[in-house]
Amino acid sequence: MNLAGVFPPMSTPFDAGGEVDPAAMRSNVTRWNSTGVRGVVALGSNGEAPLLDEKESDVVIAAAREALSGDRLLLAGTGRESTRGTIDASRRAASLGADAVLVRTPSYFKPRMTADALVVHYTTVADAVPIPVLLYNYPAVTGLTLTVDAVARLARHANVIGIKETSTDAAQIAAFVDASAGEDFAVLAGSAPGFYAGLCLGARGAILAAACAVPRLCVRLFDAYQAGRHEEARELQRRLIPIAQAVTSGHGVAGLKAAMEATGYIGGNPRAPLGPASADAVRAIKEILAPLQEFV
Amino acid sequence: MNLAGVFPPMSTPFDAGGEVDPAAMRSNVTRWNSTGVRGVVALGSNGEAPLLDEKESDVVIAAAREALSGDRLLLAGTGRESTRGTIDASRRAASLGADAVLVRTPSYFKPRMTADALVVHYTTVADAVPIPVLLYNYPAVTGLTLTVDAVARLARHANVIGIKETSTDAAQIAAFVDASAGEDFAVLAGSAPGFYAGLCLGARGAILAAACAVPRLCVRLFDAYQAGRHEEARELQRRLIPIAQAVTSGHGVAGLKAAMEATGYIGGNPRAPLGPASADAVRAIKEILAPLQEFV
Amino acid sequence: MNLAGVFPPMSTPFDAGGEVDPAAMRSNVTRWNSTGVRGVVALGSNGEAPLLDEKESDVVIAAAREALSGDRLLLAGTGRESTRGTIDASRRAASLGADAVLVRTPSYFKPRMTADALVVHYTTVADAVPIPVLLYNYPAVTGLTLTVDAVARLARHANVIGIKETSTDAAQIAAFVDASAGEDFAVLAGSAPGFYAGLCLGARGAILAAACAVPRLCVRLFDAYQAGRHEEARELQRRLIPIAQAVTSGHGVAGLKAAMEATGYIGGNPRAPLGPASADAVRAIKEILAPLQEFV
Amino acid sequence: MNLAGVFPPMSTPFDAGGEVDPAAMRSNVTRWNSTGVRGVVALGSNGEAPLLDEKESDVVIAAAREALSGDRLLLAGTGRESTRGTIDASRRAASLGADAVLVRTPSYFKPRMTADALVVHYTTVADAVPIPVLLYNYPAVTGLTLTVDAVARLARHANVIGIKETSTDAAQIAAFVDASAGEDFAVLAGSAPGFYAGLCLGARGAILAAACAVPRLCVRLFDAYQAGRHEEARELQRRLIPIAQAVTSGHGVAGLKAAMEATGYIGGNPRAPLGPASADAVRAIKEILAPLQEFV
Repeated sequence: MNLAGVFPPMSTPFDAGGEVDPAAMRSNVTRWNSTGVRGVVALGSNGEAPLLDEKESDVVIAAAREALSGDRLLLAGTGRESTRGTIDASRRAASLGADAVLVRTPSYFKPRMTADALVVHYTTVADAVPIPVLLYNYPAVTGLTLTVDAVARLARHANVIGIKETSTDAAQIAAFVDASAGEDFAVLAGSAPGFYAGLCLGARGAILAAACAVPRLCVRLFDAYQAGRHEEARELQRRLIPIAQAVTSGHGVAGLKAAMEATGYIGGNPRAPLGPASADAVRAIKEILAPLQEFV
Repeated sequence: MNLAGVFPPMSTPFDAGGEVDPAAMRSNVTRWNSTGVRGVVALGSNGEAPLLDEKESDVVIAAAREALSGDRLLLAGTGRESTRGTIDASRRAASLGADAVLVRTPSYFKPRMTADALVVHYTTVADAVPIPVLLYNYPAVTGLTLTVDAVARLARHANVIGIKETSTDAAQIAAFVDASAGEDFAVLAGSAPGFYAGLCLGARGAILAAACAVPRLCVRLFDAYQAGRHEEARELQRRLIPIAQAVTSGHGVAGLKAAMEATGYIGGNPRAPLGPASADAVRAIKEILAPLQEFV
Repeated sequence: MNLAGVFPPMSTPFDAGGEVDPAAMRSNVTRWNSTGVRGVVALGSNGEAPLLDEKESDVVIAAAREALSGDRLLLAGTGRESTRGTIDASRRAASLGADAVLVRTPSYFKPRMTADALVVHYTTVADAVPIPVLLYNYPAVTGLTLTVDAVARLARHANVIGIKETSTDAAQIAAFVDASAGEDFAVLAGSAPGFYAGLCLGARGAILAAACAVPRLCVRLFDAYQAGRHEEARELQRRLIPIAQAVTSGHGVAGLKAAMEATGYIGGNPRAPLGPASADAVRAIKEILAPLQEFV
Repeated sequence: MNLAGVFPPMSTPFDAGGEVDPAAMRSNVTRWNSTGVRGVVALGSNGEAPLLDEKESDVVIAAAREALSGDRLLLAGTGRESTRGTIDASRRAASLGADAVLVRTPSYFKPRMTADALVVHYTTVADAVPIPVLLYNYPAVTGLTLTVDAVARLARHANVIGIKETSTDAAQIAAFVDASAGEDFAVLAGSAPGFYAGLCLGARGAILAAACAVPRLCVRLFDAYQAGRHEEARELQRRLIPIAQAVTSGHGVAGLKAAMEATGYIGGNPRAPLGPASADAVRAIKEILAPLQEFV
């Protein structure tokens, strides 16, 4: 599976009653179809996956699949704390049209989640699921990290095709690239401030919240890098950083949704316990995005 | 609600096919009925709550209620990442006979879980649920901590009746006791190595994994403290620490289940990705528990 | 050596030119002599030891010794990053009249400071120094912690007579007490909010910044505990906590010095890069201490 | 000052009696002179600076200056916990011939080391010292990090000419480069696994432990990047990573010294409490370095 390119981890719009809004989701996906992105991620962290129940999760995947162009990839977040819950969610995702699943590390029982335990977990999932599996390492949220050794072992599994590395640690990204050299395994950068560096180090693409609001900026950076135009890529990276900081590290999902509103997508408010962005935050986000309308 | 006493956070037995085993659970609860515990907690961390689906959660609560004496309290863990998921689970727990719910802090979106956000979350839950709510602070798992100020504000809510503090930080326990002075609010120690110190500092009781295997040891410590027999309480605390370390910090849920087997309860193996305790661990746990059969 | 009691970790006053002021130090020590404290600690963290050079360190110890009653103990902080620097400083402290040295864990090269390496370090120091050695565990500053196993091994050394445990973790204090049972080894609480709980768990005394400003409050708590008056001890602990928070966790050394000024001791400002307490902080500290003049 | 290039942070050899060995140091420096490095760092972390006393520090700087070519830069680590200690060490370094000083963040009193406090500290030092100052950010050791805002403010000071960023966080390096854009301020990568990525992001050079043992590998990577030969640079980066891991993250200063022995430099053992590398570690390090003799 060719994962080279940019994927927005789509946010999940809610209607006035607080229910998942598939029509709004389809509207966003339809716009992304023509921006050059390689596909979309449904049910990532920015999609508020942990705040949705199992039925809602299915609605999100179905809506994304319905609206997404046939030549774009649909990755679905299906990580659960239990191995069997992960398998069940992954099979449902497959049956709803996902091309691959993105499985975050279980983390509630951190001290037991050794490299060996995680290799067993992912191997069991990859054996049981009919579509390819991507690992998802997100230490800032989970409090644990996939080791290089675990990634090396999992990269040899025929049905494990890549990893989203959310940290911006160049050493970690380089190590994952090296550990999977020779395998059909793609490292995807998971954080906009590390996108260009990740590409330099061998990442094949990226899953970037900022790409929900300014997909063409991310795609252009990717294309510049692919064409060897390092100066341009670095300059676009510079422009990307303040957006990333405002949208995710600064204001989280609410910030991302406000950014999407500022660039013509449907955002809305997140689900409690997440609160809406403050008026000040919305204003700041609008100011940052105003000069970037060419990239929406 | 009088929470003074000891609560085992019951583990969840699975049958040979990996399904929740209500009969085994009822057997355990029936034994605990006569050990002097104040009640049991269903669906805590040691009950592998994060590894169960919603239907299984209901089965666990129903089984516990069925077997538990009418004069014992049933606390049910109902924390979910979303406020609405927490309310839904809590209402179901109430309808299944739980006396109160134990709600861990949502933590996936850590940087947004400010004191204010958590106060709103818990207030919304406590307003919406027909039975009392206990807060549940577990920094080692969640990566965040309820602040003293947040606890002080929540303790004033008529339907928030206490907190399980899982750390053994004497300063934190003392601060929570002080912050809730004058309110009908119980601080419960959540970790066996801090049980006696917690009582000294004003905790009214405890939820202790070790109490699943040696409930009478925990109850005797509690009684000794209540009667002002500090020397005896401290000596029992000394005997409790190696059990606690073997069972939870050392080997996690699998260790707890092995300890329960060693004292005649039904344990079994945990659900994947948790693995079974090693043969060495089982042997060590048996050795620790062998001289403690008077306390089972 | 009988370490049972309270030790203020004396702050280091500076004169108008920023130089160590031995006369001011002697004045403070002379007052502490009559408050019931067991002795004083010179060159602890609150004494700004890391900000003094070797000559100044000697001046501090000499001044403390000169003013301290002969029946009070002088403990001197002599931890350095190198083993030989620690030995050298400890020998000088001995020659200047210190009764024992308090040696914090070296921590710059954290990943190498394994339990084994720390046992070698402390053993080498204890072998080479003519006066007894106290371990000093301060995870919040050093980023590492002495393990229970390391403490158990070091407690058997004839010249290692105790440990200052700065955390308020009841499990850690209990474990250190248990690990050293049967040895001539004293666990000293190092943080006021954990003082009473520490005593309950077997600590023999405490080194408490708050004791610089309100020594008699700490001494009275200690005496109440010794006499089995738990209620009184707990009540005094309650009064101690806000002082401790204002003085150290809230405002650091500058706060401690402001508190000392508020109770008639000589405080002054800390050395850069530490700044003075803000006017607001000074006011708040004064308010907290105003009703406690009986304890100064 | 043109900091573009590679700097080995020279280790400090000790003689059989454990004393600093200036002759051995001069021998190493003399060899580095002809490897294409831009200069050397004396008294960095890998130079065991925290284990040396003030006189020894002066000996190290003098020896380095004596042997270093006149067209190479000598950077001297002079950070101390106190501002005045830092100024004193920096002035001495200047008088001994250092071209610039490298000042790590004071960190003992972490909670007080706010961005403002650090800006005051560095400004006071930079005002008082006759040679340029480089900031030194080393979160893994100090437990604190210089914020982007602090770096932006300090980059405007005429006598603050750069920063060594020891983490491999691409977002942090990019942010420091952006924050100092337009100023005469160099960001230097401080960790070999992040060298190439750092250059891509605008770092002008690097201080790399691996350069003590294989300086020409680091220099060739730098030259390849400068010439726009990204593929070659990335390939050299790949070869550099296992060395870096063996030498520093794997075995610390002892590993670095063993690596230097393996490539013909004078290494020896570190000073206690650091221990020597194990025989296994030495063997592993030799194996890694055997095929790299062209780069020594």
